[in-house]
Amino acid sequence: MARKIQRSYIREILDAINEETISFAGGLPNEKLFPMEQLKQASNKVLKNSLSMQYSKSQGLDGLREHIAKIYNEKFNFPTTKDEILITTGSQQAFDIIAKTFIEDEIFVQTPTYIGALSAFKVLDLKVKGFNNHSCLNRELKKSSAVYIMSDFQNPTSESIDEVNREIIAHVLEKNGPILIEDGAYSLLDFEGEIKKPISAMYENSFHLGSFSKIVAPGLRVGWIRAKKELISQILSSKEALDLHTPTFNQMILNEYLNQFNVFEHIKIVRDDYKSKMEFMAKCFNKYIPSFQFEVPKGGMFIYGKFEQDTFELAKKAIENNIAFVPAKVFFHDNQDSCEARFNFTNSTFEQIERGVKKIAELLEEYKIKEAG
Amino acid sequence: MARKIQRSYIREILDAINEETISFAGGLPNEKLFPMEQLKQASNKVLKNSLSMQYSKSQGLDGLREHIAKIYNEKFNFPTTKDEILITTGSQQAFDIIAKTFIEDEIFVQTPTYIGALSAFKVLDLKVKGFNNHSCLNRELKKSSAVYIMSDFQNPTSESIDEVNREIIAHVLEKNGPILIEDGAYSLLDFEGEIKKPISAMYENSFHLGSFSKIVAPGLRVGWIRAKKELISQILSSKEALDLHTPTFNQMILNEYLNQFNVFEHIKIVRDDYKSKMEFMAKCFNKYIPSFQFEVPKGGMFIYGKFEQDTFELAKKAIENNIAFVPAKVFFHDNQDSCEARFNFTNSTFEQIERGVKKIAELLEEYKIKEAG
Repeated sequence: MARKIQRSYIREILDAINEETISFAGGLPNEKLFPMEQLKQASNKVLKNSLSMQYSKSQGLDGLREHIAKIYNEKFNFPTTKDEILITTGSQQAFDIIAKTFIEDEIFVQTPTYIGALSAFKVLDLKVKGFNNHSCLNRELKKSSAVYIMSDFQNPTSESIDEVNREIIAHVLEKNGPILIEDGAYSLLDFEGEIKKPISAMYENSFHLGSFSKIVAPGLRVGWIRAKKELISQILSSKEALDLHTPTFNQMILNEYLNQFNVFEHIKIVRDDYKSKMEFMAKCFNKYIPSFQFEVPKGGMFIYGKFEQDTFELAKKAIENNIAFVPAKVFFHDNQDSCEARFNFTNSTFEQIERGVKKIAELLEEYKIKEAG
Repeated sequence: MARKIQRSYIREILDAINEETISFAGGLPNEKLFPMEQLKQASNKVLKNSLSMQYSKSQGLDGLREHIAKIYNEKFNFPTTKDEILITTGSQQAFDIIAKTFIEDEIFVQTPTYIGALSAFKVLDLKVKGFNNHSCLNRELKKSSAVYIMSDFQNPTSESIDEVNREIIAHVLEKNGPILIEDGAYSLLDFEGEIKKPISAMYENSFHLGSFSKIVAPGLRVGWIRAKKELISQILSSKEALDLHTPTFNQMILNEYLNQFNVFEHIKIVRDDYKSKMEFMAKCFNKYIPSFQFEVPKGGMFIYGKFEQDTFELAKKAIENNIAFVPAKVFFHDNQDSCEARFNFTNSTFEQIERGVKKIAELLEEYKIKEAG
């Protein structure tokens, strides 16, 4: 009777992880960098006002929406007012809200793509189709389709779409008129601090998603949707039916945090830390598993690359040995077999990164011996 | 293209309310009673641990789930383990999670019923049917149906189902086997502290919903679903696809609050306050609008009653005069006209209650004069 919904492999891994596990699996930020002292100051100020614990507006707090609009205006070069922002309970919730309101047919996703988006679309029984490039999109897109794209440091591949291709995609979309969901979860995590203009700035029928999870802290579960006012007013009732509104308290803390502190100074600390972790992990792969092919990412939280064998079995073997990473199979909408895999570098120490990669190298050796035997 | 989803009338009223408005409209708890000092203590303790800001398990924090299970065991006389609890982002989210996973056909709701449940079911395109009593249910129920019931201090009527009728309903359900969603949002708000055994304790294919919104604070958006383990594991992936998990921080604060303080001592304060507000509002109605017919509620947050005229127009007139209440029309799944209306008494002062009821009496007089003219 119940719809058969597969739990996400990643969440299952996260649940299975114990204190011994070296985990490259999740997309967990480095919790040692969370601005705890500042959040405490913000929280204590907010707790002086009992309205922080009361119900509030479905669209979200005005002050916080103003802060977010400012980021679009000043950093993304994308003119935005607070009325064009809707606060969501994590960016994840945006998929459900938008899909429920607008998508009745099919959605095109990059191959591979973010597993959380796949789950959200599949729970709603949408037809999920993959696309590799804009020509493919141009060929298959209908007006009733929707498109999901992560333009910056895509999860899982860490690839970004360059300016020229953004314009081409915007042009392809303009021709057909589908809904675009553009996910900016990692857009502010370029190692050098570069911030690209979203495709959404060139295409009106679009929803741009953002989140405080990767730039402040995921445990607050505060994200947002940026869209033109008419679209926001259409999704508002879906948001409301879902959880009335995102926690008032969490919104007020972030608002106060952004009032008092410069979040971009904090992001700089995060970027620098992630860059050094990434460089170290890349070095370890080159040293211990030279056959692993990957592009060195320019931002984001993952190294994505290709082994010489299917990674689904390898990942299972690894988790038995207390090393977790994610085989790419789960990132494909059609669950295709793959030799690729994703490694998170932000939530491990240098020592764990080296030990983990070495252990995977050993497991690969064991396979070779078995095969040779 | 977008599905036509009506925004909830109540949320629209809440959005429209300004500082001058006397609002009997929302289901807002009295924020003056929120345990701010205790929440601050809990929050400061929790903020010493940076994991409070990290991602966490989709099912929710173990400690918090244990506290909730304890409430079922000790207060509801309903044996429960922490594995039978799933934490939700407000109780509201439970409707979406359960409906999405289990309901493909129709759902029976009480007439009238909670407007948030109606919205959640309608967003998912479910066929919503009303029932007045168990005989009606017995006649029309199929195995593929679902049933939504609020057994205690139902929103909007404030009526409770007595023990005998709970058993009869359980029997009717047993015969047909549908999914039961039983909403316990107000179950702990009996003015005398009585707590009834839920129907779910007599019927296995059920989800019992609870929330901290009415007993601690709604701004944290933490609720839960209680169901047998097999059902919990089936809804887990829908929860995960929705928002990954409920904010870690908020769960840890409530867990710490429940570790350190006796929430039932706090609930006693809330109950006593609400009882005195209710008694005062009842007195005002009897004094200023003797034609308004209502049962004096034994718990909950609303007085529900009947005027001599349709209340939809009256409510509009009232909001123009800065008095907000909810006409019953919006609580009916089929939007039928009604002379009934719901008045919240928990979020107004005694002075506001008297002034508000008096003002409505004046508006009714104006109508009479108009009609006579």
